[in-house]
Amino acid sequence: MTHEIAVIPGDGIGQEVTPAAVEVLEAIETVDFEFVEGDAGDAVKAETGEALPQETRDIAADADATLFGAAGETAADVILPLREVVGSFANVRPARSYPGLDAVQPDTDIVFIRENTEGVYTGIESEITEGVRTLTRVITEEASRDIAEYGFDYAKRNGYEDVTIAHKANVMRQTDGLFLETAEAVAEERSVPRTDERASGEAASSGLTYDTALMDALAMHLVMTPEEYDVIVCPNLAGDMLSDLSAGLVGGLGLLPSANVGEDNALFEPVHGSAPDIAGEGVANPSAMILSAAMLLEHLGYDEEGEHVRTAVESVLESGPRTPDLGGDAGTTDVTDAVVDEL
Amino acid sequence: MTHEIAVIPGDGIGQEVTPAAVEVLEAIETVDFEFVEGDAGDAVKAETGEALPQETRDIAADADATLFGAAGETAADVILPLREVVGSFANVRPARSYPGLDAVQPDTDIVFIRENTEGVYTGIESEITEGVRTLTRVITEEASRDIAEYGFDYAKRNGYEDVTIAHKANVMRQTDGLFLETAEAVAEERSVPRTDERASGEAASSGLTYDTALMDALAMHLVMTPEEYDVIVCPNLAGDMLSDLSAGLVGGLGLLPSANVGEDNALFEPVHGSAPDIAGEGVANPSAMILSAAMLLEHLGYDEEGEHVRTAVESVLESGPRTPDLGGDAGTTDVTDAVVDEL
Ligand SMILES: CC(C)[C@H](C(=O)O)[C@@H](O)C(=O)O
Ligand SMILES: CC(C)[C@H](C(=O)O)[C@@H](O)C(=O)O
Repeated sequence: MTHEIAVIPGDGIGQEVTPAAVEVLEAIETVDFEFVEGDAGDAVKAETGEALPQETRDIAADADATLFGAAGETAADVILPLREVVGSFANVRPARSYPGLDAVQPDTDIVFIRENTEGVYTGIESEITEGVRTLTRVITEEASRDIAEYGFDYAKRNGYEDVTIAHKANVMRQTDGLFLETAEAVAEERSVPRTDERASGEAASSGLTYDTALMDALAMHLVMTPEEYDVIVCPNLAGDMLSDLSAGLVGGLGLLPSANVGEDNALFEPVHGSAPDIAGEGVANPSAMILSAAMLLEHLGYDEEGEHVRTAVESVLESGPRTPDLGGDAGTTDVTDAVVDEL
Repeated sequence: MTHEIAVIPGDGIGQEVTPAAVEVLEAIETVDFEFVEGDAGDAVKAETGEALPQETRDIAADADATLFGAAGETAADVILPLREVVGSFANVRPARSYPGLDAVQPDTDIVFIRENTEGVYTGIESEITEGVRTLTRVITEEASRDIAEYGFDYAKRNGYEDVTIAHKANVMRQTDGLFLETAEAVAEERSVPRTDERASGEAASSGLTYDTALMDALAMHLVMTPEEYDVIVCPNLAGDMLSDLSAGLVGGLGLLPSANVGEDNALFEPVHGSAPDIAGEGVANPSAMILSAAMLLEHLGYDEEGEHVRTAVESVLESGPRTPDLGGDAGTTDVTDAVVDEL
C-alpha cells in the first residue's frame, strides 16, 4: 500500500527542513510513500496573489496526510485554512527535553492537546463604531467534547498518568465554563478520578487521573515545575501560548513537532516558523520537522517506524552533529544524514 | 496631610499579609495614614451573600488608595469590580528576580503594563443555542491608547530602555490589529524608534526604543531570555498569563506586587491568591504585599519612601529570615519585623 503525502515546504527554512523530513521518510523501507508537492506562503503569494492556492488545498485534501514546513508573513493565511482543509480538531504538541541538551527545565515531558477550530480563532470580528472593535470567541460543547475525548484517549494510549484541563472559567464564565464542564464530564464518563482524590487513596478504575488549572496559574507552574504535568488539554489560544512557553523550557522551537489531527486526515508541522534570519544558510535544525514526520508515521499506524525515527533523532540530539541553535556548527544535511544513518 | 487608605484583607493569607503591609506603612514616619478596613471575599459572602458588599466599594471609592490582600473562590467577583471602582485602566506588574534567591531565570527585571478594562474581560457572553456559547472580546482605540501611553511614560520615567508591545494581530486581525496600530502610533508620537532601527544606528530622540511581539513567541522568549525585556505592554488576558509566567521565572507569586492604576485612584495587591493550603499557619510570605505597599507610596508621590521599603524588602530577601516558599522556616511576622527593622 502506497501512502500519498502532500508536501508543502512553504517559506524560509521550511524549504530546508521539509526535504530533510522527506529524506527520512524515504529511508523507511517498510513503508511506501508517494510525495506530491504543493506551494504555499509568501513566495507564491508574491507570484500569484494567493498564499494558499486552490491547487495546494486540493493536494492536501486528497492526500493521506500532509507535511507542512513553515510560512513567513502569510503564516496565518496558510496554516489556518490548511488546518480546516484536513478537518483538524486537535493540535497535538509534545514538548520534551532531551538528555545532553541545554534546557531551562531539563525534566520536561508534556503533550499539549490544543483545541484547533474555535476560541478566538473564529475570524468573526467587527468594527462596531470607529475605534471600537469586537471579536466573537466561540466555544461549543461539540468541539470541547472532541478535544477532551482526544486528550484523555491520547493520555491513556501513550501511558501518561495525568491530564490537566486548562481554562479561565473564573473570567470567561459561560464559554470556558462550558469547556471545563464538558471536559470534566468526559473525565467522569471515563471514570477518571481527580488527581487529589487519587492522591487521597480513592480507587481509580483507569490508571489516569485529571486536574483542572487556571491558565494563568498554569503558566507559572509550567515554568517552575514542568515535571508535574503530563497531558494538557486547552482552548485554542491558551494552547498556542502555553506550548510556545514550554518550547522555551526545552530549548526552543527547533525541537517541537506537532500534529493537526482530523477524523480521516492530518497535517504535520514543526512548531517553529520560517526563521527568515537564518533561511538559505543551510543551518536550520531539522529535528522538529523530522519529529513531525515521526508523528505522521504513527498516525498512519506505523508505530514502530515512528518510534525508530524518534529514537534516531534523540540519539543524534544527544551525541550527534548539532546546528547553531543548539550551540553546534553542523548544517541541516549533516543532522539529517546522521538521523538516516541511525535508522 | 493624612492619606486615607482602604484596607481589604479578604480571605486566606490575605488576612495575614495585609496587616504586614499596614505595619510597614505605619513605620514610615514621614507620611500620615488613616486606615479604613473593608470586608470582601468568600467569608463575607458566606455571611451576607455578597462577595463585595456595597460598603466596601464605598470605602475603596472614597479612599486615596486601596490595599487589597486576596480572595478565595470569589476572587473574580471581588477584584474585577474593585478594579472598576478605582477606575483602573492599567495593571502594573513588575517581575524581578532578587540576588540570593533561587530563580529559574535569575536575571529577570520586567514590568508588565497590562490593559485592565477590556479584551476578554468584558463579561459579555451568550448562549446562542444549546452547546454554543460566545464571548465578545472588545478592543477600543481609547483603552489601547491609554495603556500604550502609560507604558511608554512608565518606561521613560523609570529609566527602562525598551518597550515591547505584545499582540496576536495575525489571528485577531481587527481587534489586536487596533491594539497594535494604536500602540505603534503612540510610539511614533513620542518619537520612539523601533529597536532594530535603533540597533542599525538611527538616531533616537528619546533614550527609548520599542518592538512588537506575537504573544505566543513572546512566551517562549520570556522563558529563554527574559533579560532581553524591559517593559511589556499587553492586552488584558495576555498580561494575566505572561506576568504569571514571569512570576515563575523569578521564584513564584510570593514576590510579585501589582498596582491597578486609575486617573485619580488606585488599588495595590500582590499577584498571588489566598493560598488556602497555607492559610492560618502564619507562614505566608508578605513580600509581594509589602512591595505592593511600596508601589502605593510611590503612587502617592513618596518616591523616596517607596524606594526605602523596596530596598528593605530586598535586603531581607537577600539575607534575612525566609518563609517556607523560599526554603526557610520563618513566619510572616518574622519577615515583617525584619523589614521594619531595615527601614
Ligand atoms: C501562525 C499562527 C496562525 C499559528 C497559530 O496561532 O496557531 C502559530 O502560532 C502556531 O502556533 O501554529
Ligand atoms: C482572579 C482573576 C479574575 C484575576 C485576573 O484574571 O485578572 C487574577 O488572575 C489576577 O491576575 O489578578
